[in-house]
Amino acid sequence: MSATAPQGFRAAGVAAGLKSSGAPDVALVVNDGPHDAAAAVFTTNRFPAAPVQWSRQVLATGRARAVVLNSGGANACTGPEGFGDTHATAEHAAAELGRAGLELGAIDVAVASTGLIGVRLPMEKLTAGVTAAAAALRADGGDDAARAIMTTDSVPKTTVQHRDGWTVGGMAKGAGMLAPSLATMLVVLTTDAVVDAGTLQAALEQATAVSVERVDSDGCLSTNDTVIVLANGASGVTPSAEEVAEALTAAATDLAMQLLADAEGSTKDIAITVRNAASVADALTAGRACARNNLLKTALFGNDPNWGRVLAAIGTTDAAFEPDRVDVTINGVTVCRGGAIGDPREGVDLTGRAITIDVDLRAGDEQATIWTNDLSIAYVHENSAYST
Amino acid sequence: MSATAPQGFRAAGVAAGLKSSGAPDVALVVNDGPHDAAAAVFTTNRFPAAPVQWSRQVLATGRARAVVLNSGGANACTGPEGFGDTHATAEHAAAELGRAGLELGAIDVAVASTGLIGVRLPMEKLTAGVTAAAAALRADGGDDAARAIMTTDSVPKTTVQHRDGWTVGGMAKGAGMLAPSLATMLVVLTTDAVVDAGTLQAALEQATAVSVERVDSDGCLSTNDTVIVLANGASGVTPSAEEVAEALTAAATDLAMQLLADAEGSTKDIAITVRNAASVADALTAGRACARNNLLKTALFGNDPNWGRVLAAIGTTDAAFEPDRVDVTINGVTVCRGGAIGDPREGVDLTGRAITIDVDLRAGDEQATIWTNDLSIAYVHENSAYST
Repeated sequence: MSATAPQGFRAAGVAAGLKSSGAPDVALVVNDGPHDAAAAVFTTNRFPAAPVQWSRQVLATGRARAVVLNSGGANACTGPEGFGDTHATAEHAAAELGRAGLELGAIDVAVASTGLIGVRLPMEKLTAGVTAAAAALRADGGDDAARAIMTTDSVPKTTVQHRDGWTVGGMAKGAGMLAPSLATMLVVLTTDAVVDAGTLQAALEQATAVSVERVDSDGCLSTNDTVIVLANGASGVTPSAEEVAEALTAAATDLAMQLLADAEGSTKDIAITVRNAASVADALTAGRACARNNLLKTALFGNDPNWGRVLAAIGTTDAAFEPDRVDVTINGVTVCRGGAIGDPREGVDLTGRAITIDVDLRAGDEQATIWTNDLSIAYVHENSAYST
Repeated sequence: MSATAPQGFRAAGVAAGLKSSGAPDVALVVNDGPHDAAAAVFTTNRFPAAPVQWSRQVLATGRARAVVLNSGGANACTGPEGFGDTHATAEHAAAELGRAGLELGAIDVAVASTGLIGVRLPMEKLTAGVTAAAAALRADGGDDAARAIMTTDSVPKTTVQHRDGWTVGGMAKGAGMLAPSLATMLVVLTTDAVVDAGTLQAALEQATAVSVERVDSDGCLSTNDTVIVLANGASGVTPSAEEVAEALTAAATDLAMQLLADAEGSTKDIAITVRNAASVADALTAGRACARNNLLKTALFGNDPNWGRVLAAIGTTDAAFEPDRVDVTINGVTVCRGGAIGDPREGVDLTGRAITIDVDLRAGDEQATIWTNDLSIAYVHENSAYST
């Protein structure tokens, strides 16, 4: 049920011909109220795509009634013309929904796009797709919407979190450009809880900080990353701010783990936990240095517990630690003790998909986990042929 | 002739059994004087290998008479025992050279190692190799030494720079972990010019800053990077500080380009020039962000001029620029103008090995070039099987 699991939401996913494959590529999620609180976080890339620039304006109002999403083109680095295309998409969606009886304008419609950067969208196809999606809206259309936002994803990603009389639903797409500040591409969350926009924004930021922002599959920050949440109050239940944050965190974490498991060409899901750091920031810095070290990632692809590459990676950071006090444990075997040789590396079994790397800095009491993938031959193959 | 091209140097390379292949793996370079000025730059990794820790002590004197180098083991992250091994190697080399008539102690002998991190060196084999190398020293032994320091290098790297009555020679090894602060692993330069240690150090830092430090093949900083230069004054010629810096820069640049061309599994040599930056630091930051973007590197491996990935990469930096003023030119075609769509990407021919990417930030008058490689299937293959 995905984004339509909570009461008062409809969604649709249709094929508009943006993808040459003929697969679904336009999705629409509509909030039927009664409330229309909304919140979002966006990419920090300095080249935000046109839909990101537009949706920032929409979300600045703290309200949104609908989200139009398309795969088959990112509409990034397309200049003022590209921004005009996004604006026209929002206007068209508002008009179509207005025809169906909803009262809204373009400013109530967020837009999100994913696909190749630097190419204009075929607007005739896209607007026809929005028309078709508006006509296809259903109270159980969440799964269709989730399928329509897939790019190199092999499966749709959805989540449903039931709480006491209220629900959070959601969908995500993303299989590459998974890092660093939003490891996502696109996420839409919905809830029928009664939540004001300010509480919703704070809860969303709390949720993304410990979920999608800690997935660092390939170190590449997208121009299009968008996480948006719509709250309509249809359940009549008013949870506390903490309860909202907890449910959004559960939903975002569920989706983040699905993104990780489906990352382009990956054969390993790697959890890098940095313990006993002087600060969470230090733990994240050290964890990310490992997650972005191509030599470590290729070694893990090859089932090689090459712990020297863990030290070489964290040795490039400014995290607080004494080099001769650092321990490294891979899948339960402490292969490095005090920055030097520990238990035999031959004891490490890396044949499964799940790998845990624990780095003990012995420099404080904080810790954090970064999730990443290996660097595989399939990753290179998929990404060397993306736009051709 | 390599490191023995200048007068008054001898060298040797022998097989000591450190490599299971039986290939040469121990090299020795000896300065026969009359002077023994020396300078060096080392990795900034916070886990410096034992030979780096030792050689820093040697070079702190501004003097060195010999350099022992081994492949087949990095002696990094090996604790106090590993440091003891390096010290014993220097002592053994000093004793062997003393037996041959040179007056020197361990403190006159720098050591450099390369190979797998986190494994002790087989000291019996290594010291026997040093003995053999000392016996094999020859005035034309530079090429033998260059071959003995190879790891995954497919060819030895050497350089000779003749100047007016004096010469700079050198050798290098390195094919992976090529970045960021010394894209090298190991370089030994020699000169028969008359140069004091202070001038030599300044000239070396000037030379490495614009050569090996601007090669960023895979973003991974080694624990063992060492660039050392020995000057014996045997030519009797005293060049100016500028002349020394120029010749060392020429030698280091020649070696850096050889490292780039032989980088593990690479199929492209990519020169990323960032122009009209507010500062050289900004140009380097933006260039490095491109050089480390796996999605861009895989696209170039696939002959795909995916310029959106160039913008996505520099969009993660804090370099000064306005996003709507940035141009990107790939192999002569300006595919991006003003942060948006430029000339057709179909016009870019990427079938050759050499690729130039010009990023015009329109934010100042400075520029810098970072050299990198593509991310290929062969890179993943080589590095997934390195220690196994």
